[in-house]
Amino acid sequence: MSLQKTLQKILQMLKERDTNLEEFFQNLHPSDFAEIVEDLDDEQKRELFEILSDEEAALVLQEMEDFDQVDLIRLLNKKRASAILKEMSSDDAADLLGELPESQAKELLTLIEEDAEEIRDLMSYPEDSAGGIMTTEFISFPETMRVEEAIRRLREIAPEAETVYYVYVVDEETRLIGVLSLRDLISAADGTPLAEIMRRNVISVPVEMDQEEVAKVVSKYDLLAVPVVDERQHLLGIITVDDILDVIEEEATEDIYRRVGAVELEGVGLVEAAVPNIIRRRLPWLIITLFGGMLSGSVIGAFEQTLQAVVVLAIFIPVIMDMGGNVAAQSSTVFVRGVATGEIEATERWRYFFKEIKVGMAMGLVCGFTIAVVASFLRYLPFLSGAVSTVNATVLGVIVGTAMFTTVLVGAIIGTLVPLLFSQRGIDPAYASGPLVTTIKDVTGLLIYFSIATALMRFL
Amino acid sequence: MSLQKTLQKILQMLKERDTNLEEFFQNLHPSDFAEIVEDLDDEQKRELFEILSDEEAALVLQEMEDFDQVDLIRLLNKKRASAILKEMSSDDAADLLGELPESQAKELLTLIEEDAEEIRDLMSYPEDSAGGIMTTEFISFPETMRVEEAIRRLREIAPEAETVYYVYVVDEETRLIGVLSLRDLISAADGTPLAEIMRRNVISVPVEMDQEEVAKVVSKYDLLAVPVVDERQHLLGIITVDDILDVIEEEATEDIYRRVGAVELEGVGLVEAAVPNIIRRRLPWLIITLFGGMLSGSVIGAFEQTLQAVVVLAIFIPVIMDMGGNVAAQSSTVFVRGVATGEIEATERWRYFFKEIKVGMAMGLVCGFTIAVVASFLRYLPFLSGAVSTVNATVLGVIVGTAMFTTVLVGAIIGTLVPLLFSQRGIDPAYASGPLVTTIKDVTGLLIYFSIATALMRFL
Repeated sequence: MSLQKTLQKILQMLKERDTNLEEFFQNLHPSDFAEIVEDLDDEQKRELFEILSDEEAALVLQEMEDFDQVDLIRLLNKKRASAILKEMSSDDAADLLGELPESQAKELLTLIEEDAEEIRDLMSYPEDSAGGIMTTEFISFPETMRVEEAIRRLREIAPEAETVYYVYVVDEETRLIGVLSLRDLISAADGTPLAEIMRRNVISVPVEMDQEEVAKVVSKYDLLAVPVVDERQHLLGIITVDDILDVIEEEATEDIYRRVGAVELEGVGLVEAAVPNIIRRRLPWLIITLFGGMLSGSVIGAFEQTLQAVVVLAIFIPVIMDMGGNVAAQSSTVFVRGVATGEIEATERWRYFFKEIKVGMAMGLVCGFTIAVVASFLRYLPFLSGAVSTVNATVLGVIVGTAMFTTVLVGAIIGTLVPLLFSQRGIDPAYASGPLVTTIKDVTGLLIYFSIATALMRFL
Repeated sequence: MSLQKTLQKILQMLKERDTNLEEFFQNLHPSDFAEIVEDLDDEQKRELFEILSDEEAALVLQEMEDFDQVDLIRLLNKKRASAILKEMSSDDAADLLGELPESQAKELLTLIEEDAEEIRDLMSYPEDSAGGIMTTEFISFPETMRVEEAIRRLREIAPEAETVYYVYVVDEETRLIGVLSLRDLISAADGTPLAEIMRRNVISVPVEMDQEEVAKVVSKYDLLAVPVVDERQHLLGIITVDDILDVIEEEATEDIYRRVGAVELEGVGLVEAAVPNIIRRRLPWLIITLFGGMLSGSVIGAFEQTLQAVVVLAIFIPVIMDMGGNVAAQSSTVFVRGVATGEIEATERWRYFFKEIKVGMAMGLVCGFTIAVVASFLRYLPFLSGAVSTVNATVLGVIVGTAMFTTVLVGAIIGTLVPLLFSQRGIDPAYASGPLVTTIKDVTGLLIYFSIATALMRFL
């Protein structure tokens, strides 16, 4: 049954106050349920959530988008809201409370009681750090415990824990000293103490590590979860791989947005966001581009005399600008992504740069030759013949071809060099593909073009 | 110890033929080992791999980049290579063999013997499909089996299986009928038959599903592995979450590259790739851009008379082009990413489009006003005063400001509309941010600018 049909059926059942509704939900995955809820109106949402137990409601809520979670919590009375929060994973509860206005979050926290301390701690870490995405529902045992006892304990606590697939071994002061996968545990003989079978080389991350770095660690070592420790190796929490999937997607979006100066909206969907909010995030980049564009334009202004004498030269301004822009975009995109994925290592950056110069030269030769040929034949295009037939076709081809070669080469150099220098100074190279590269390649491209044109003007 | 230092130490030990080398490796994670191997020369690689058992070598090899795997396999003799391949996961072995020349792959396959059939089957699926990334090392039990028997069997086969965290339940014809997580299993009472505790609503993917869709399913339902079935529900394999992490990264790279017309190189690193190979992948986009740029240029050619009369107008060509380009890039980037992540649902696309028009209008107003003011004051810039002082500043401001407003608005519309129409026709919208959008926004932007200028020329 498609989600759309399921939604229709639910609406029908709600309307008829069908008593089978509850049973119907038992067979729906919380993720599908969450998707359906997002399409309902407030009254329907409230009705639906009344049928669910606190635990079921928590499962569904966890699967909803941040801004839909906030909307829903606001629909419920405080007692119900806090009861549901209590059933959520500590990391999800902390995230949700972090999205709410402070006074409301505080009030709910006092109602939660027992887990409030833990959630408050989690809320104190920066959102994008290991601490900000970890959960405190992990399993840790002392090293003296034996395998059969560990398995018995696991069977008891399995329903509460976030993941049972890793069991962490800690010393008396809760310092992390070893790890066991559930697989290790079930393959071991019953009487063995954990100390004998645990792996001591535990891969862990410090609580302040950036979430992007955490994702790299989890991905590199193919982990299902990674433990989070403080500077004295105390085990504070774990981050599970399903949260890492979200981090990778989030970071890719951030990188992609950063390239065009669009900042992601937090706590609200793209479709729902208010227009002034969107503009505030995109306009600054445009205003910088505007002044960059004026700078490029003043290059043309400086060659006014040349242009006045041979106005045909203006025809090639767009192709020079577009080509420089496209090559620079290719170069910076491939370089920035290569650095982000680790394909271009820190030590290989300059080697890559010198190769890119060769690529730029070769592509410049092809493009320069092509545009030279095109320029020489422009006079045969009916709507341009008037303008172009007044100049020497061969000389025009030489001017435009040479300028194109240089522009493509410079585009490749700038497109790689600017992000390379950015990344060496610790600035996110994704920023480098914006107005700065655009302006540099436009100014140099036009400068080269008009300089060559001015030099060869008397032959035109 | 840093990887660099570890590498130094290994080289030292290799040189001295230190007998502790083998023990030293036992404590190194295969991923770290793989990174170190990639930095060695061929002779050193060969020496190192001689020390490792087939099983250890397989673990390390699986963690290396595709092209490094191929290089290494070529260094080893065929008998050793096939022995190592036999120890690898079936999906990794199939991928590696797929990268080798066909004759070599065939020869190795005959040496592998027992698992060869499985690997050959895996190699027959398209690389980017569920079948192409699945592994056949899963665990399946009949529904009549009881919990204690299942746990006992698991303990035996755990070291062989790719994941033990899900156990699949199949009928007599190996059709998938249920799933149990290891967590369900260890929380259940010993005597229970699997049929009673298994979940019957198994989330599975068809063998031909695109890997990007598979990643969405795994991410949505927070799975550690997803079963792959044929059209009659026969269980063929599983895909584990660590492979999904790679898929998400790979697909993000593909999307990002596609935007600039750079095709990813397969089987070779960015730094090692040959220049002609790179050019072949980037040049086509540039040549299309070149002809697009000439089309935009011919708009200028068509207004030659206007430009000849007021050559100052050329100064604003770059800013008009850059701004249109930047707005279109923002709009298409946000839209394409929003569709990719599911934040903009299929039913919401047109609603989003109409909102984007409002955004474009508001940003156009601000940018138009800004450039109008800038244009009116250009005469006070010393190096431009000669060119600009001959025209009426207010009229110039009105022309440029109106053109800018329209260009920004049109940029927002085209930047959203082109990918929207692409995605409705089933074409990847990432392609839409390329030469097509560039050309459309340049042609319309310049057309608007010069039309307004021609209309108001007599007041200048």
